[in-house]
Amino acid sequence: MKTVNTIQEVRECVKAWRAEGLTVGFVPTMGCLHEGHQSLIERASKENDRVVVSIFVNPLQFGKGEDLETYPRQPEKDRIVCAEAGADLIFHPTAEEMYGRDFSTYVDMSGLTEHLCGKSRPGHFRGVCTVVTKLFHIVKPDRAYFGKKDAQQLAIVRKMADDLNMDIEIVACETVREADGLAKSSRNNYLNPEERRAAVILPEALRAAERMLSSGIRTPEEILKTMREIIASEASARLDYAEIVDAETLRPVSRIEAPVLVAAAVYVGSTRLIDNFTYEM
Amino acid sequence: MKTVNTIQEVRECVKAWRAEGLTVGFVPTMGCLHEGHQSLIERASKENDRVVVSIFVNPLQFGKGEDLETYPRQPEKDRIVCAEAGADLIFHPTAEEMYGRDFSTYVDMSGLTEHLCGKSRPGHFRGVCTVVTKLFHIVKPDRAYFGKKDAQQLAIVRKMADDLNMDIEIVACETVREADGLAKSSRNNYLNPEERRAAVILPEALRAAERMLSSGIRTPEEILKTMREIIASEASARLDYAEIVDAETLRPVSRIEAPVLVAAAVYVGSTRLIDNFTYEM
Repeated sequence: MKTVNTIQEVRECVKAWRAEGLTVGFVPTMGCLHEGHQSLIERASKENDRVVVSIFVNPLQFGKGEDLETYPRQPEKDRIVCAEAGADLIFHPTAEEMYGRDFSTYVDMSGLTEHLCGKSRPGHFRGVCTVVTKLFHIVKPDRAYFGKKDAQQLAIVRKMADDLNMDIEIVACETVREADGLAKSSRNNYLNPEERRAAVILPEALRAAERMLSSGIRTPEEILKTMREIIASEASARLDYAEIVDAETLRPVSRIEAPVLVAAAVYVGSTRLIDNFTYEM
Repeated sequence: MKTVNTIQEVRECVKAWRAEGLTVGFVPTMGCLHEGHQSLIERASKENDRVVVSIFVNPLQFGKGEDLETYPRQPEKDRIVCAEAGADLIFHPTAEEMYGRDFSTYVDMSGLTEHLCGKSRPGHFRGVCTVVTKLFHIVKPDRAYFGKKDAQQLAIVRKMADDLNMDIEIVACETVREADGLAKSSRNNYLNPEERRAAVILPEALRAAERMLSSGIRTPEEILKTMREIIASEASARLDYAEIVDAETLRPVSRIEAPVLVAAAVYVGSTRLIDNFTYEM
């Protein structure tokens, strides 16, 4: 496994693989890799001859006052995770390498970006779409792997690839969880032991929603009320949003009649955590 | 030479060429091909093993009240021009093929898009960037050919390809002119004989500017005043803009000290014509 910092080196490496007729899988990450990323890399490694992992804390997708500066970084541990999971190349660029002089081109989307995290984090998905487009152009993979934990990001990347005819298969991978149900996330590193215990309230609220759906309840407001109450019961937790939206359009539904995404974002202390599940009907 | 209407057919054709190790040149057009387009296709044919020409009147780059409906279309003549100039494949999609259900992803740019035609045609360059990105993803060329007549478009496409790491060489081709100096343009078809005679005022104003620059004049305002007076002398012509901008940033300059783009847009009757030249110093 090799680590490179420049776009040119990635291009040369992938070009040599292509000349041998090899397929390429790609896992874009912001580093601080956990078992969720590991499962993406392992799957990419099973389905492709070669795997590229990018590690880049993308400034463009952080808003003012968000955690760009403090976002956890652990390049040495990341190298070990990548190597053990079967990666062949790590692309670890600087912000200067990615956003050179007078960078001024952006990929943006209406519709899917307007709900859920899009409301709490204006500009976030423009940053995601722009960096993913750049990385796709640099790596030129056959397949790219994204986790379902970031459900809105996944839907947006799929839609973008389709709208812009990117000819890359977007592969969705299951959320990996801790023993108590908390979704693995690099931001879990921010939690102190007490907050870590409190954070389980987020998957608990989602499990309650799932039970209500399974029991036949079809009124979003009834389910959301329960979710809000559960989260309010935890003093260290503060709800950002809880929504039940159409699984395809991500628009809020007034009655549950087709597959829905149930998604929530919760602050635990000052850490913002997200989680979701899809209910297929 | 083959003509296809679907993205799938283009992909299959280009894939077969790639399997043979052939290089691919691309000329995106809105059809109604003239000698300007012809020169792009001929150059692409010289520099690549295979050439794709797209013919697509892109609704996204037309503003409200612009000439989307009346834009000239002549597919049969276009086929002959393409064949004679050395094209191997024409891609002639419908708007539905290009912008399917709920299309909602856009490529946009700040900076370069804000001056010249960007001011007169809000949203135009977003439409250009979006369709060019899509076409680049569909055709995956080694090189793409653009005319200098659309100088701002050329600068924007170059910048976009660079910012988004598109790995496609953008080749600029000289403007082709009529005997009296009028730049070849599909929109020249709109002009009645009297308007056609009047239209020569645009290249005449630009030639006057060039003479003033050659004589050492370095004050944009002095040159622009002359250009405006020349255009005002033609009763059928109405100035949209005349500007002297930095050749790289397209920002207006207060003194001419580095390469500049001198550009103008003029209405002749209801037809909007553009032209420009670069002065290298």
